[in-house]
Amino acid sequence: MLLCDIGNTSYHFYNGTQDFRYSVDEFNPQSIAEQTFYISVNHTLKQKLHNLTNWIDLERFIDRKQFYETMGIDRIVAIETIKNGVIIDAGSAITVDVVKEGGFEGGFIYPGMNAMAQCYKNISSALDYSFNFELDLGKMPKNSQDAISYGYLKPFVDEIKSKNLPIILTGGDALEFKKIFPDAQLDQELLFKGMKKIITKANLC
Amino acid sequence: MLLCDIGNTSYHFYNGTQDFRYSVDEFNPQSIAEQTFYISVNHTLKQKLHNLTNWIDLERFIDRKQFYETMGIDRIVAIETIKNGVIIDAGSAITVDVVKEGGFEGGFIYPGMNAMAQCYKNISSALDYSFNFELDLGKMPKNSQDAISYGYLKPFVDEIKSKNLPIILTGGDALEFKKIFPDAQLDQELLFKGMKKIITKANLC
Repeated sequence: MLLCDIGNTSYHFYNGTQDFRYSVDEFNPQSIAEQTFYISVNHTLKQKLHNLTNWIDLERFIDRKQFYETMGIDRIVAIETIKNGVIIDAGSAITVDVVKEGGFEGGFIYPGMNAMAQCYKNISSALDYSFNFELDLGKMPKNSQDAISYGYLKPFVDEIKSKNLPIILTGGDALEFKKIFPDAQLDQELLFKGMKKIITKANLC
Repeated sequence: MLLCDIGNTSYHFYNGTQDFRYSVDEFNPQSIAEQTFYISVNHTLKQKLHNLTNWIDLERFIDRKQFYETMGIDRIVAIETIKNGVIIDAGSAITVDVVKEGGFEGGFIYPGMNAMAQCYKNISSALDYSFNFELDLGKMPKNSQDAISYGYLKPFVDEIKSKNLPIILTGGDALEFKKIFPDAQLDQELLFKGMKKIITKANLC
C-alpha cells in the first residue's frame, strides 16, 4: 500500500517508512502497480487517475461540512490531524490553517517561495533575487535582496506568530521556512497521518 | 515644462496642474517637444531617453549617499519630501519606505496587486481571483477569494501599522489601498513634489 499527496507540482509518496517525491510533469501514475490511496488538489491529474483502479481517491471518504466548498483537500486532511495549532504547508502555494480545540478557525493562502521569486522577477529584472531566509527581521532593509526578502517573509512571520499557537510545518519548502520559524515542529508526514486516519475510519484496509 | 515619473509599466506625467499616465508599451517619448524632467526605474527606457535632449534625467542631481546603490530613484525622491512617515508607493511593485526625523530607516518591496494576482493564478487556476479590498481583516477567511485576499493584504497592513507613523499613499493603485488604510494621506503628486525640490535645489529652472 502506498499513500500519495498530489500537489500542483509534485506527487508526494509514502510507503510506510519513507517519503519521496516525483515531478507532476515527469511521473507516470500507471508505473505504479500497488494499491495507492491519494488526495489531489491537482484537478487535471484527478481526472486522469479516476481511470486507474489501483488509485483510490480518499476525498470521497472525507466529511467536508466543517469546511468551505473550494477548500483544498490537502488542507482538510492536515487539519484533521491536530487539535490546536497553525499548520503551514509550504509548497508551490503556502496554505496556513488555524485549528483551535479541534475546530477549523479559518486559513489563508500565500505564494510559495518559487512562485513569489518569479513574481518579483516578472515585475522587473531589478527584483530578480532569491530570498534571504537568514535575514534579521528586526531591522528595516537597506539593500535590494533584503528589501524583497523582508517583504515576503516579515509580514508573514508576524501574522503566524500573532496566533499564539504551536506551529506545524510541512511541505516541500518546509526546511527553508524552519529557519524563520525555529520553534516550529517539522512534520513531513503530517498529511500521511491524516490520510491513515481517514483510511482507518472508513475501514478501507 | 513637464515632470515625468517612469515606472515599469507607465509614464506618469505632471504639467503643473494635472497628472496623467501613458502605458510604457504604447507611448512614444519623441512625441513630447517640451522640456521634460524625469526619473526612471525602467532601465531600458532610461537608455532610450538619454538620446532625447529635451528629456532631462534628474537622477544625476540627486545625492544617493544616504541610500543603497540599487535603490529605485522613485523611492529616494519620495523620501526627500517628508520628515516622518511610511510612504507606500503602490505600483506594479509596492515600495514601502520608513522615514524618521528626515532620515531613511529602511524599506521593503512587496508585489503590486496585479503582479500578485497573476502570481496566485500561475500557481493554480484554482487561485485565480481578484482581491477583496473590503475584506474584514479581523476574521480568518473561510472561502478561497478571502483566503488569498487575506494572505496578500492582512500581513502587509499589520506590518505597515506596526511602524506607528503617518501613512502616505501614492502610485497607480493607491485608491485601492486607501480602502485598507483609511487614515492614510493620498498624494498622487508626492513624487512630483520631490522632483520640484530637486529642480529648485539644482537651479535647473
